[in-house]
Amino acid sequence: MSFDFTLEKTSGAARVGRFATPHGVVHTPAFMAVGTLATVKALDPDDLRAMDAQMILANAYHLHLRPGDELVRELGGLHEFMRWDGPILTDSGGFQVFSLATLRTIDEQGVEFQSHIDGSKRRFTPESVMRIERNLGADVIMQFDHVIPGQSEVNVARDASERSLRWLARCRAEFERLVVEDPIQGRESQALFPIVQGGIHAELRREAAAAIRDMGDWRGYGIGGLSVGEAKADMYRILEDVHSVLPTDRPRYLMGVGFPEDLVEGVRRGVDLFDCVAPTRMGRNGTVFTRDGRMNIKRAEFRADRRPIDPECDCACCTRFTRAYVRHLYVSDEMLGLRLLSLHNVHFLVSLMREARAALLGDTFDGWSEAWLQRYHSRTVPVTA
Amino acid sequence: MSFDFTLEKTSGAARVGRFATPHGVVHTPAFMAVGTLATVKALDPDDLRAMDAQMILANAYHLHLRPGDELVRELGGLHEFMRWDGPILTDSGGFQVFSLATLRTIDEQGVEFQSHIDGSKRRFTPESVMRIERNLGADVIMQFDHVIPGQSEVNVARDASERSLRWLARCRAEFERLVVEDPIQGRESQALFPIVQGGIHAELRREAAAAIRDMGDWRGYGIGGLSVGEAKADMYRILEDVHSVLPTDRPRYLMGVGFPEDLVEGVRRGVDLFDCVAPTRMGRNGTVFTRDGRMNIKRAEFRADRRPIDPECDCACCTRFTRAYVRHLYVSDEMLGLRLLSLHNVHFLVSLMREARAALLGDTFDGWSEAWLQRYHSRTVPVTA
Repeated sequence: MSFDFTLEKTSGAARVGRFATPHGVVHTPAFMAVGTLATVKALDPDDLRAMDAQMILANAYHLHLRPGDELVRELGGLHEFMRWDGPILTDSGGFQVFSLATLRTIDEQGVEFQSHIDGSKRRFTPESVMRIERNLGADVIMQFDHVIPGQSEVNVARDASERSLRWLARCRAEFERLVVEDPIQGRESQALFPIVQGGIHAELRREAAAAIRDMGDWRGYGIGGLSVGEAKADMYRILEDVHSVLPTDRPRYLMGVGFPEDLVEGVRRGVDLFDCVAPTRMGRNGTVFTRDGRMNIKRAEFRADRRPIDPECDCACCTRFTRAYVRHLYVSDEMLGLRLLSLHNVHFLVSLMREARAALLGDTFDGWSEAWLQRYHSRTVPVTA
Repeated sequence: MSFDFTLEKTSGAARVGRFATPHGVVHTPAFMAVGTLATVKALDPDDLRAMDAQMILANAYHLHLRPGDELVRELGGLHEFMRWDGPILTDSGGFQVFSLATLRTIDEQGVEFQSHIDGSKRRFTPESVMRIERNLGADVIMQFDHVIPGQSEVNVARDASERSLRWLARCRAEFERLVVEDPIQGRESQALFPIVQGGIHAELRREAAAAIRDMGDWRGYGIGGLSVGEAKADMYRILEDVHSVLPTDRPRYLMGVGFPEDLVEGVRRGVDLFDCVAPTRMGRNGTVFTRDGRMNIKRAEFRADRRPIDPECDCACCTRFTRAYVRHLYVSDEMLGLRLLSLHNVHFLVSLMREARAALLGDTFDGWSEAWLQRYHSRTVPVTA
């Protein structure tokens, strides 16, 4: 069996697991760096290996538009194309279709939209997205779902959630058909994850989770439609509701989350996998994570600061360069600056999850997570917008 | 003695040498990657170490404006600031003052100009430039010189060349004064190189070279004002003229040159050191060097090309990635693409000089250089503007 999830330790809802995939074991909880276009922005695959990144993510929507999923397949699939031989997960494009693309028409069949690159007219259906994700060849592929704004009212959320369930059945049928049609890869070269939707409505979330659970045995579960505008308290509450319904012996992936504090709060509520563009996007904007909160490297006070960004960090930026140098690179628009800031931020989240695993295994998770959150929120390091 | 130059082998004018500096030995002939603002654009110092780059260059003009040479000194000097513990050379800013800055006023005392960054009024004199380069702390520092366009007529060229000689005397006096005033670093922590000017006029070049030679014993010699608009044949001819006058037992550095073919032609004419922004600038523009000439990675024909950029290259790009992937990164504006293209190009020149050294030591230089030039100029790989 290519896919397998073993729980090694739990502490309340929090857990340490081993998620086996065709491209290796993911030690959970883990943060997945986002490689939208088959590259984690500003980083080299060697940087990710050096920080022991467990799994990375790529985007079906973006790669379908450029360079094209059929070309990626022709070139040997995502792993070979981008030279990352570890586990990969592809997002289905649901989020991008509903956030990036313009002039959408949604009906039961699927979504018609215009490409954000050249305005060309495209159509995604559950079936076409399965073909795209199969072409890309990631280990874990996400279902095509209907994503709505975070504060959507209950009727809108119910419609989208129920449509996502119907689309899940179609995704599964097409996925199974593709596996039969193309048996060379073998069924277990990829696993299809469903996505629990339902907005901030506890009842809808529980219904969706139960319906998905009752559809069959999945290799893992996505939790979507969070961190899209709702209050953090709502997100944390929903995680608790969903946790109570999903099978405990499968990994749960909280999509598009998040910031360091969200990762710790998520682990406390039973989440195993996270992804977010924040570390690279914020890095390109000069904002870095530290154990004492965020800070922006542009600030004049760092002009002659000989300390590393985070004195306790062992990343390839902090072990070599001063704040003064990184600030100089950043204000001079030097690419090395963007790389170092992105690298530090991704490393921060990857190693935060490593610390969480160690705390769980060492039976110190409750104290560790409380102390970590308290220090991070104390924000003794100056923050700018 | 911190500085020393030993000739290990010669073949006609071409030579292999060991140039000892306070930060290590430079095996010549060598190409120096340009780190204008204390970073070789798009590269990490580890990339340069991995390709066995011998020595790198930084710019006094740029670093004086940003972040300021006094700050660099306060932070421990260039080596510590940018985390490059190998040899460094700083250009004096002569070229930048005459090419980048606006509203110049040149007189015997120095040059007044406006910063290209904020328009602030600045003044460079031979004395102030020595203080800047001493603050930066490179191993080799260049004199402040008067640089003119490549096709300048003889009277203009003579004026600039003679002024550069007078400025050289002032540079040396100030350099020696600074060494006495600040003896901690010790005299031999830095070496001042003069620059032979004289445009494309053989007589002026020979006069300048002889005058500099007769001023005393220098650790090495710069040859400036070439590759600035003159014909290549003129540049090669001038190198031969200068070669006949300069002492053979000191390294010669051909400033701002160049392209791969210029390096091979330069070595044939006795040049030991080169530098140029071409590999990184062209890389950022999508143009790469190959053994069969230049090519631009943007071209549609590379869309599904599984070969590396140069199948014979052993750089960190060519040993891992296909043309198809690098092209995808480039057309998608992904930073990794700019890094890989820059890395390949710098590696190409660094390893070209390594090949030249091996050919010289193996007594095959004449045949090697002719075959290399013939293949490179045959340009079987498509070129675009």
